[in-house]
Amino acid sequence: MFFNLKSIAKELNVSVSTVSRVVNNKDNVNEETRARVLELLNKYNYVPNEVARSLKNQTTNMIGIIVPDITEGFFAQIIKGADQILTENGYFLIFCDSNECEIKEKHYMELLFQKRVEALVLATVSKNTKPLRMYIDNDIPVVFIDNLPNLSESYDAVLINNAKASALAVQHLISNGHERIAIIAGSQSETTGYERLNGYIRTLKSNGIEVDEKLIKYGNYKDDSGYRCMKELIQNKRDCDFTAVYVTSEKMTLGALSAIREEGLCIPEDLAVAACDFHDKSGLIVPGITTIVQPEREIGSLTADLIIRRLKEKKFSVKETEQETAKQTILLEPGLIIKESSGTVYKR
Amino acid sequence: MFFNLKSIAKELNVSVSTVSRVVNNKDNVNEETRARVLELLNKYNYVPNEVARSLKNQTTNMIGIIVPDITEGFFAQIIKGADQILTENGYFLIFCDSNECEIKEKHYMELLFQKRVEALVLATVSKNTKPLRMYIDNDIPVVFIDNLPNLSESYDAVLINNAKASALAVQHLISNGHERIAIIAGSQSETTGYERLNGYIRTLKSNGIEVDEKLIKYGNYKDDSGYRCMKELIQNKRDCDFTAVYVTSEKMTLGALSAIREEGLCIPEDLAVAACDFHDKSGLIVPGITTIVQPEREIGSLTADLIIRRLKEKKFSVKETEQETAKQTILLEPGLIIKESSGTVYKR
Repeated sequence: MFFNLKSIAKELNVSVSTVSRVVNNKDNVNEETRARVLELLNKYNYVPNEVARSLKNQTTNMIGIIVPDITEGFFAQIIKGADQILTENGYFLIFCDSNECEIKEKHYMELLFQKRVEALVLATVSKNTKPLRMYIDNDIPVVFIDNLPNLSESYDAVLINNAKASALAVQHLISNGHERIAIIAGSQSETTGYERLNGYIRTLKSNGIEVDEKLIKYGNYKDDSGYRCMKELIQNKRDCDFTAVYVTSEKMTLGALSAIREEGLCIPEDLAVAACDFHDKSGLIVPGITTIVQPEREIGSLTADLIIRRLKEKKFSVKETEQETAKQTILLEPGLIIKESSGTVYKR
Repeated sequence: MFFNLKSIAKELNVSVSTVSRVVNNKDNVNEETRARVLELLNKYNYVPNEVARSLKNQTTNMIGIIVPDITEGFFAQIIKGADQILTENGYFLIFCDSNECEIKEKHYMELLFQKRVEALVLATVSKNTKPLRMYIDNDIPVVFIDNLPNLSESYDAVLINNAKASALAVQHLISNGHERIAIIAGSQSETTGYERLNGYIRTLKSNGIEVDEKLIKYGNYKDDSGYRCMKELIQNKRDCDFTAVYVTSEKMTLGALSAIREEGLCIPEDLAVAACDFHDKSGLIVPGITTIVQPEREIGSLTADLIIRRLKEKKFSVKETEQETAKQTILLEPGLIIKESSGTVYKR
């Protein structure tokens, strides 16, 4: 059972308000009584009932975060970056994994709202913006990471310039002599998927290379889909040749690599590979895979900073009289780690 | 602002109890009134105030989980495994990252207790069992993963047989001709660190190989410590030679590999390496690293099952009259993935 102020007051034969004054560190309590109350509070490991307190103060100190897949290093690193700053500021994270599923994401958004999170960090996989209304209409700050929502009003977001990321990767392949470059793109209903494909198309065009739709395949960010897309590309290779492939996520790259191995192709001799978020933590991956990298920890810490600012603004602003601070999208620069896998094409 | 039953009742000019009956799907409400109430509830995105409700029902449906490092794939996979089962059963996870820090772990334990989690999953890094008393004394189920606590009473736990894991790895190295085998062990105040070192020592002894204390180094599971230990071993190699090293965690292995590369040693020609939890998701790591693998998803799902069982027992048991169900430690079998890196020693 939980010990409460009432049971402690009864045991010591003092009033509940006396115990309450000790708990809240108020002055007007006899020192001997204070000592006896504190002793009992310690004995019973008394912790203020935060649920009751949060109800009274309308504050929970909880920040929700929903990501599509916690086993993607990208999201784990963002959480780590955000968690550090939030902890230092007295908040803590409720973490949820939507498993790339629109329905599960909605379910978690409702749950977190019910639990009265003070703010939400969302890497959405959903076209449906209706669940967002709960948050927006109730003035609960939301910061988007990775994907952007299909909202008409402005919003806060922290992400990389995804079109530029693709441009870096594709331009690198082109500068190594590749012209027939396939892409394994992500879902086109998500901005990350759309922007990365867009960057690929624009970079080909600006280099005077024709876009061949047969070289564009669509996955859903999971391993399996990367495997399937790569298999299709390789099986059509006779009719529709290509010398390089750009895979737009870590897990899809893992799937694609598995298909490439299975088909007995060599990297980079038979096929050059460029990827997104493909970290070689061991330093032993041979051949190395050229990859787009995102400043993950920084995305996490900037997201946390933005949330803390929004919560402060909310707490101190005089409603209805002050202009709401403009929402902002923080666009970070992608990096490119060049490895031999996208090495020069030797014309045969 | 939040809309509540009272404001909706006022707007429709009906009683609060009528609105409440609609929300709770009770019978005795006029159908036209019910329709008007539902319309307004939908319009305002009404969500039952779970904070108030949980206070009344003494239930929050929240399960806390504290892990030392969410960026270790091992813990991310456990969370994924547990999350799936818990979600299906109407619970959801509050996730915290202690960053391998005893003080942060204690802080999160207090926070989660204040937030009234119904159960706790804990991969402890702490010798201090005092924070656990809050949970134990208040009958909140705790399941330990990875590390075991220094408790006198029995407890629930799900983990692999760590001594056996080391035995598998070390016996494999021995059967490939290695006799001078170094170890990078973890913190000896944690059972995982202690048991893995113990398994190493016992396996050497049972094979008639002398244990050389100069070949035993202690890290703290972080990359840096693996790097430092490996550097020390290599720098002492002239005085204290060895042909193989067994590194007892993923991150320490990454650090050790970095030191091996820096020192210009070849795997397996100069040095054979066996690791723990070292997943080659790309299939491109050359040379492959022989590794102990844990059934991570299974640890997660079994942990979730155990929690759900404990919560059911708590809900339905008649206190003081029934014997408490015995606590249990579920000990899973480690696996061994053999790669060429621990290949045969050719006697020179």
